[in-house]
Amino acid sequence: MTGVDASRLSLNTATVREQWTLAQCIDGCARHGIGAVSPWRDKLQEMGPTAAARAIRDAGLGVSGLCRGGWYTEDGSLTRKVRDDNRRAVDEAAEIGAACLVMVVGGLPKGSRDLPAAQALVEEGLADTLDYARTAGLPVAIEPLHPMYAGDRACVNTTRQALDICDRLGDGIGVALDVYHVWWDFEIATQIARAGRDRLLAFHICDWLVPTSDLLLDRGMMGDGVIDIAAYRAMVEAQGFDGFVEVEIFSADNWWTRDADEVLATVIERARNC
Amino acid sequence: MTGVDASRLSLNTATVREQWTLAQCIDGCARHGIGAVSPWRDKLQEMGPTAAARAIRDAGLGVSGLCRGGWYTEDGSLTRKVRDDNRRAVDEAAEIGAACLVMVVGGLPKGSRDLPAAQALVEEGLADTLDYARTAGLPVAIEPLHPMYAGDRACVNTTRQALDICDRLGDGIGVALDVYHVWWDFEIATQIARAGRDRLLAFHICDWLVPTSDLLLDRGMMGDGVIDIAAYRAMVEAQGFDGFVEVEIFSADNWWTRDADEVLATVIERARNC
Repeated sequence: MTGVDASRLSLNTATVREQWTLAQCIDGCARHGIGAVSPWRDKLQEMGPTAAARAIRDAGLGVSGLCRGGWYTEDGSLTRKVRDDNRRAVDEAAEIGAACLVMVVGGLPKGSRDLPAAQALVEEGLADTLDYARTAGLPVAIEPLHPMYAGDRACVNTTRQALDICDRLGDGIGVALDVYHVWWDFEIATQIARAGRDRLLAFHICDWLVPTSDLLLDRGMMGDGVIDIAAYRAMVEAQGFDGFVEVEIFSADNWWTRDADEVLATVIERARNC
Repeated sequence: MTGVDASRLSLNTATVREQWTLAQCIDGCARHGIGAVSPWRDKLQEMGPTAAARAIRDAGLGVSGLCRGGWYTEDGSLTRKVRDDNRRAVDEAAEIGAACLVMVVGGLPKGSRDLPAAQALVEEGLADTLDYARTAGLPVAIEPLHPMYAGDRACVNTTRQALDICDRLGDGIGVALDVYHVWWDFEIATQIARAGRDRLLAFHICDWLVPTSDLLLDRGMMGDGVIDIAAYRAMVEAQGFDGFVEVEIFSADNWWTRDADEVLATVIERARNC
């Protein structure tokens, strides 16, 4: 299996979050020959979606996703605020031509220990956003997060669980798979086959470091950890996935402290072996 | 649902690992009215299994398990050393009258990224130990570990995965469920029902802290985190589980720094609400 060429990579802005604005990310991708970008909403709003859409188009970049919608459990019920914010996220994703809106669904509401209730609330929220997203023709991508985030970030933690939700909600919704979140899952091959091409909406890479020093901000560069990234890429591509391979690395003590051009050059070099 | 009385609790020696020897744990359980103990092998070997068995019997304590067998992936293949060490663990568990031998199966071999190969090796090892354990009449308990340990400690990470292995290996093997490892799993209720009374061999409690500062050594005391412990206890007891409720807390910066009698008193008080 050959590696991933730069033109098939997408830069998730989180990878150089501390160094670059979205405008700088767009410029950086163009200079390095990276084919697409995937903005986080804070950076998109800072630049403005209209200006961002134009700059992305002018640079000839794809947009593999917008991070992130979701966070349905924030208020403990599906408030107007949460619903409206997700609808705005759909609008923003559509405006920049994103392939999907990536959903980090939210963990336990503050003070709650009721995980099934949180999961029910998430599904109610996803259904609401999906109704709206269908009118915009924008795919909604549930990102199952690693189980270590069940308490505070996302109570959808396996691909099976995400696909069960997709089965219930119908068309227009699928999954965004990040190897960091799913690599440990003994049934990931089965679930990727179950997802099929239509529901594989995004594929994110980075690496799992051993040891990992921080639950959130110690992701590794591809090749520095223990994930067999090529194996997972082969699984999604066997289903026909031909989207961008998105690089999303949260790394407070390492990659966020380096020159962003060095980070991009390293990403490109390492992706050749993925 | 009423809480857990001290007489139904078991003290896993890891909870006061830095403060007490096994002899002190046995004495402490007796003084506090805790019904059972669950030693780690290093502490058991330090005291000597024969002396420990006598002291436990004299104190009138149960033994909810021996921690731990497993670690099958350590040498990259199922070496004589690994097989023999697991057989010794069976002997030790039988000698102290443990309800089961708890298996932490091992993660990726050093330098490997091949998780399916590691999982196959684990199953080969479990089959070997199980053959021997059956002759001793000692139940083998697979402990699915939280997915954040897949790389370096255990590549069996869900109850479904553990039960699939049990299905293939037959009688004499079941699961040890620790709420810390399984609380996030959306299908835990289904899998506990699938396990049934015969395969629910141990039940461990502690709590998941938000935030968690360390992947290994920052477990919480019951009540200090987000796990609905009573809900999981209800699930195992609905299947007929009537074994001890074992308390296992790794806590480098908090509970390991306190007076051990204070830790036990706190365990007893908090368990009343579990």
